Amino acid sequence: MFGIQNHKATVSNEAFREAENPSSLVVHFPPDTPLVMDAGLTISPFSIAYQTYGTLNATRSNAVLVCHALTGDQHVANAHPVTGKPGWWSTMVGPGRPIDTDRYFVICSNVIGGCMGSTGPASVNPETGKVWGLDLPVVTIRDMVRAQAMLVEHLGIETLFCVAGGSMGGMQVLQWVASYPDRVFSALPIATASKHSAQNIAFHEVGRQAVMADPDWNGGRYAGRAGQPVKGLAVARMAAHITYLSEGALQRKFGRKLQDRNAPTFSFDADFQIENYLRYQGSSFVDRFDANSYLYVTRACDYFDLAADYDGSLARAFLGAKTRFCVVSFTSDWLYPTSDARAIVHALNAASLPVSFVEIETDKGHDAFLLDEPDFMATTRGFLESAARARGLSGGESENSR
Amino acid sequence: MFGIQNHKATVSNEAFREAENPSSLVVHFPPDTPLVMDAGLTISPFSIAYQTYGTLNATRSNAVLVCHALTGDQHVANAHPVTGKPGWWSTMVGPGRPIDTDRYFVICSNVIGGCMGSTGPASVNPETGKVWGLDLPVVTIRDMVRAQAMLVEHLGIETLFCVAGGSMGGMQVLQWVASYPDRVFSALPIATASKHSAQNIAFHEVGRQAVMADPDWNGGRYAGRAGQPVKGLAVARMAAHITYLSEGALQRKFGRKLQDRNAPTFSFDADFQIENYLRYQGSSFVDRFDANSYLYVTRACDYFDLAADYDGSLARAFLGAKTRFCVVSFTSDWLYPTSDARAIVHALNAASLPVSFVEIETDKGHDAFLLDEPDFMATTRGFLESAARARGLSGGESENSR
Repeated sequence: MFGIQNHKATVSNEAFREAENPSSLVVHFPPDTPLVMDAGLTISPFSIAYQTYGTLNATRSNAVLVCHALTGDQHVANAHPVTGKPGWWSTMVGPGRPIDTDRYFVICSNVIGGCMGSTGPASVNPETGKVWGLDLPVVTIRDMVRAQAMLVEHLGIETLFCVAGGSMGGMQVLQWVASYPDRVFSALPIATASKHSAQNIAFHEVGRQAVMADPDWNGGRYAGRAGQPVKGLAVARMAAHITYLSEGALQRKFGRKLQDRNAPTFSFDADFQIENYLRYQGSSFVDRFDANSYLYVTRACDYFDLAADYDGSLARAFLGAKTRFCVVSFTSDWLYPTSDARAIVHALNAASLPVSFVEIETDKGHDAFLLDEPDFMATTRGFLESAARARGLSGGESENSR
Repeated sequence: MFGIQNHKATVSNEAFREAENPSSLVVHFPPDTPLVMDAGLTISPFSIAYQTYGTLNATRSNAVLVCHALTGDQHVANAHPVTGKPGWWSTMVGPGRPIDTDRYFVICSNVIGGCMGSTGPASVNPETGKVWGLDLPVVTIRDMVRAQAMLVEHLGIETLFCVAGGSMGGMQVLQWVASYPDRVFSALPIATASKHSAQNIAFHEVGRQAVMADPDWNGGRYAGRAGQPVKGLAVARMAAHITYLSEGALQRKFGRKLQDRNAPTFSFDADFQIENYLRYQGSSFVDRFDANSYLYVTRACDYFDLAADYDGSLARAFLGAKTRFCVVSFTSDWLYPTSDARAIVHALNAASLPVSFVEIETDKGHDAFLLDEPDFMATTRGFLESAARARGLSGGESENSR
């Protein structure tokens, strides 16, 4: 009657299975190539799990790196191994899609700190043979990007044709250009910011506290235990989910509509459709995500402040790069509003980088970057086609990729 | 190191003490005057705890009823019996204040469903001798107002000079005029709406789920137990608190400032001031509020849809009333934005009621209604002075009230 359904521990352990035995390609970086982390520590050996789509051309010039958002993963355009649902960006990535896998070689790796096969708190620490938990150093966006750069190098790719991503993925895009200005031909940061606002930190902190308030979280040591912190994680997801939508979209979609009833029950049941929807979002999330990992990825976003690494000048972060940019925001996104995108554009202008900026009119909120928004699709397609011409990639069906 | 501090059960039991033995005046309504509730049930006997300030004049024409918000209480302008802090509206109510206790007789009662002495889930059910918990029927805004009307009648007041309140208090103001059109001379609904939006229901549902996810909530039966659902309630408060502020105010007040440190700790400590602030808001709230009561008052707001009781016409809710209104909203309030206030004003216009509408420019968000905003204070003072003249109340120091 009340609350979020209790999940069997086995359900949440799916995440652990993927953490250690991912349904993906994996590179295990040996001890002589450790990951140097901003926290001042190194981890080694460590792993990166990734997916690729399409074919790398002979000149290795058609690689697109897709960076995933907070709770996304490497399964961009294939069925998810845990949920069976279509890839999270299958509207954007695939044959004939804006990021066209008939033309481009698309790479997406699970971030460090994630739970889908790259080293994260749900992975086993090779030194102890036990799950890392909170012993894993806190991960930053720059750490994630450093690991991705090692993967890209491992794949023999010197320069990426494009780095693209939304939300936390967009932060990685910005960090890529700052960290590796010569290795990014074009960049597509979407619905993102160069630093987290106080409000965004606040919402993330609520989520972390919801996880930590769950006694089954047990100080982060819940691996292998019967009780898993699924209730706390579900509450965290519910709170976060509200921020992914717009007030207008919620009103249009749900308003005050009742769920399968004609009148209020005068109880704490999910009378309203919006309640039912949120409960579903919370309880389905815990099937595929690890609670500690949620702490790590939210923390990485909160710590992100690109300008701070460059004496407070965001423009300085981009000096020396020649990357062509397309910055995209959505009118109803209140998590990363257009003002955040404008700040990025101003810095790129100040650094004399070629940049186009598109604000897409939509009521779908932050989530719009995951949806089939026609203007957004057309923008991405156009930007990549123009960049492909400049890069000397042949149009349409590439002879290299067929 | 992590999370919200554990509170001793005794701390939370303060709320229980006030629930049964309030530091207030109390009216115990005997069995022959039950409270008829929208849920289709009655409760009897039941209690209303209240405070008064100032003196009722000889003609009983100077009474102002203040309606409190979600987690407010009757302690408008005196030190709070649990926290020792000044009354929640001591900027607005007191000698020489806009709601001038030298001129007006001010009444404020704890709402039904609250936990400060009016019958609520933390009160003892006289039939069973046990704490009500979730056996108390779900309470609506109309139920709260019905109980207040019984109190006002008990005090021998036929017509209230003014009913005033912000947020959930503003909902009660609207309901008062709809339910008792002849008994309200003037009305001051502030930062409120005639119905809850999907987004507002969503945030409340997150709060309720946070409470219910706490194993110490124990299906609502935690009275007298060692473990109290303080962690869940604290998370609920943290999430809600974000909605009371504006993004701009958070940015101005906290931004990305660190708490008592010069560099991030690369941990899950409260590195950022905003994290520290939210944790404090969460943990101090549980000292004075009951978790079940939080479920009841949020539910009351969610169910509120005044027009729905009048065939979907908000104007019809006000037909027949002669009450003069002043509707106030705040520019940065995203919980009850100005569009909600405008909808009320349009309905009042359609019902041909005298109404003035003031939108106060401020970056302080929803919380502005509790703060010393000069334009807001001046607006309230002016409206009440004009209403007092129309009501034939003498200006300044009333001979009746001294």
